[in-house]
Amino acid sequence: MKPYVEMTVDELNQELTSLKAQYKKVQALGINLDMRRGIPCQEQLDLSMGMMDVLSSASDLTCDDGTDCRNYGQLTGIEEARELLGDMMENNPKDIIIYGNSSLNVMFDAVSRAWSHGVMGNTPWCKLPEVKFLCPVPGYDRHFAITEFFGIDMIPVPMTPTGPDMDMVERLVREDEAIKGIWCVPKYSNPQGISYSDETVRRFARLEPAAQDFRIFWDNAYGLHHLYDHRQDYLIEILAECKRAGNPDLVYKFSSTSKITFPGSGIAAMATSPNNMEDIVTFLRHQTIGHDKVNQLRHVRFFKDIHGMVEHMRKHADIIRPKFEAVTSTLERDLGELDIGTWTTPLGGYFIMFDSLPGCAKSIVALCKKAGVKMTPAGATWPYGKDPNDSNIRIAPTYPSLADLKTAVEIFTLCVRIASAKHLIEQKQAQ
Amino acid sequence: MKPYVEMTVDELNQELTSLKAQYKKVQALGINLDMRRGIPCQEQLDLSMGMMDVLSSASDLTCDDGTDCRNYGQLTGIEEARELLGDMMENNPKDIIIYGNSSLNVMFDAVSRAWSHGVMGNTPWCKLPEVKFLCPVPGYDRHFAITEFFGIDMIPVPMTPTGPDMDMVERLVREDEAIKGIWCVPKYSNPQGISYSDETVRRFARLEPAAQDFRIFWDNAYGLHHLYDHRQDYLIEILAECKRAGNPDLVYKFSSTSKITFPGSGIAAMATSPNNMEDIVTFLRHQTIGHDKVNQLRHVRFFKDIHGMVEHMRKHADIIRPKFEAVTSTLERDLGELDIGTWTTPLGGYFIMFDSLPGCAKSIVALCKKAGVKMTPAGATWPYGKDPNDSNIRIAPTYPSLADLKTAVEIFTLCVRIASAKHLIEQKQAQ
Repeated sequence: MKPYVEMTVDELNQELTSLKAQYKKVQALGINLDMRRGIPCQEQLDLSMGMMDVLSSASDLTCDDGTDCRNYGQLTGIEEARELLGDMMENNPKDIIIYGNSSLNVMFDAVSRAWSHGVMGNTPWCKLPEVKFLCPVPGYDRHFAITEFFGIDMIPVPMTPTGPDMDMVERLVREDEAIKGIWCVPKYSNPQGISYSDETVRRFARLEPAAQDFRIFWDNAYGLHHLYDHRQDYLIEILAECKRAGNPDLVYKFSSTSKITFPGSGIAAMATSPNNMEDIVTFLRHQTIGHDKVNQLRHVRFFKDIHGMVEHMRKHADIIRPKFEAVTSTLERDLGELDIGTWTTPLGGYFIMFDSLPGCAKSIVALCKKAGVKMTPAGATWPYGKDPNDSNIRIAPTYPSLADLKTAVEIFTLCVRIASAKHLIEQKQAQ
Repeated sequence: MKPYVEMTVDELNQELTSLKAQYKKVQALGINLDMRRGIPCQEQLDLSMGMMDVLSSASDLTCDDGTDCRNYGQLTGIEEARELLGDMMENNPKDIIIYGNSSLNVMFDAVSRAWSHGVMGNTPWCKLPEVKFLCPVPGYDRHFAITEFFGIDMIPVPMTPTGPDMDMVERLVREDEAIKGIWCVPKYSNPQGISYSDETVRRFARLEPAAQDFRIFWDNAYGLHHLYDHRQDYLIEILAECKRAGNPDLVYKFSSTSKITFPGSGIAAMATSPNNMEDIVTFLRHQTIGHDKVNQLRHVRFFKDIHGMVEHMRKHADIIRPKFEAVTSTLERDLGELDIGTWTTPLGGYFIMFDSLPGCAKSIVALCKKAGVKMTPAGATWPYGKDPNDSNIRIAPTYPSLADLKTAVEIFTLCVRIASAKHLIEQKQAQ
């Protein structure tokens, strides 16, 4: 089939009639599938059931340093967990704080702390006339939701295949003291699944922000989340790079085991410089008597060390790789010749990004919904939910079964074709 | 022996010489005991080791409503846990949010949320020229530390045997719109171990605060923490009473299983009105993807229901009752006739409160420390750590073994006698 844009209005109308007939048939099937969020599937969760066995009533819940994990204390986490997550995050255990079960909560806290108490002695953000954040777009909706919730002004920065547009980032942070942070998912990014290049990371570490309390919010959520054994993205470790560049305090780095063990019952962590650490621990001391150490110990005993964790991630990859491949191969098969969309083919992470013709994303998602396939809302990948091109759609392939996923993607491509044909017909008629 | 105050300076000097000789002997023993915090002892922690067995790799981690506890979701907690903690807190499960492992964190969050976002549409506290809290004194140091950390002005309100001075509370909240909250430990209070009377609770529910966003921070930490089977304090349930009084939104009520199962790995909860709940859930939705549901399920499966929990609390009581009795009987034996201190004899909770002669508390704690017994710092029970009478000392009997505790309390009474004798000699000589 030739590209839609090369079709005449008559050809497009003919195509649309045929597509609509297919759509009617699909609707009649009463399908109900959910591809909205990046959620591990049951088979993935089953991989970690062994974690329920590593501690029993006969276990000694004491750490190597004598800490009784059952009792109060150990504000920054047990040493064993700091070592394990240190290896996972490629950071010194000394630079790591182990938190509770949600890295989103850690990021929210970081914004909230800066809001109420300021960063390392600087004016609390709540006392400033305006606070701005840079938001690489498309990006992660829950990041944007946090900054929006605090009334922080969000400035979109375009993503490129090597990361955010660094010329723009460098210029903006240098010129505007109100810019206090930037949201980054540097590896297997949400939603593109791309990883920042060496140059991008090096330029991040060498930023010269006007604001002393500017911080890079480096959400390395998918550090070990490769799909392949031999084709993997590599990311320069940002804390070490910042130290090398003479900017040791520039980064808050976040991670968690949410998509390694159980999303609701993992452990989250932050890595940062000793100065930031001191600032944060002062806060933490008032905020809690400590996080769940038994769960920290459970993770350590389950994985034993980083090798156990890497081995475990291979099993995840084996489950979700076919799903990613099913999505991209179906997109290629159904849309490859039509020039009505582009998509990414990531080597890891949880998402595939699809870009439709401008002005079609909302219609596509709405059509999918009416056919029983729930997608992430169009626009969600942009601050305030506003995609100026109305083209970006996030595909989350992990949760449905492979069979369901194939059905869902076929419905998706059908909807892309319908929306695109309609759109082009309108365009051509308006000309 | 006659009361110290009736002794002449010579008699007191003679007494002091003898006490100092005893003190020298004690110091020579090289004792090292810690009574600083209300921490369960190892034997108490062992009571909950069965919790490590209720979930295994063979367990179904699915809730009755089909929720997979391993995955994301269920922002307000799993229904089973809301029911269990509902029974524990005497509240409707619908009015309960289950949080993570620390109720202190829930309280901190409540202050932080009001600070950054305001309470139910009112001006965020960070935008106000001043924010004040009422602090019943003596009270819980970690409460005071939270409000101090936010720069909230703390106004001490005297505690009476039936709760805070309600005349003063009523007047202050009615007159001053800057007063936004009050810290309460209504049952087996920290540090007195007393419980608010029916009248006190009823007057709380009928407060007429000038500030619409005034909230009672009702930390019911010791609801089930009785020492005796047949002599127990009873507390009116505040939420129901507020509803009855036409003030449904007046209270944030907090509780946790920290001193029921494991202090570091329990579950915390908040109970509040539907209006407050809606306000809080909006916040929560941005803050986290949900708390640890596997740990919630673990608690539910371990206790089965409230009867299991009550039974479990009897075992705690059996362990700590002798400790409380050892403290009070030793105080009575060593100080009963001397008129140099008073103390509480609570029926539950984690503390005994001691009041020395005015001006002696700091010396007593310092003397204890030099003899190897660490007490909660004198003054800790007051906002900003400043006890104007320098008389209040919190005794935490649960953590040391019974033998160690007896030794520690004997050292304590010795130090009370030394400090009191010295103090009275100085007073008499100054007259």
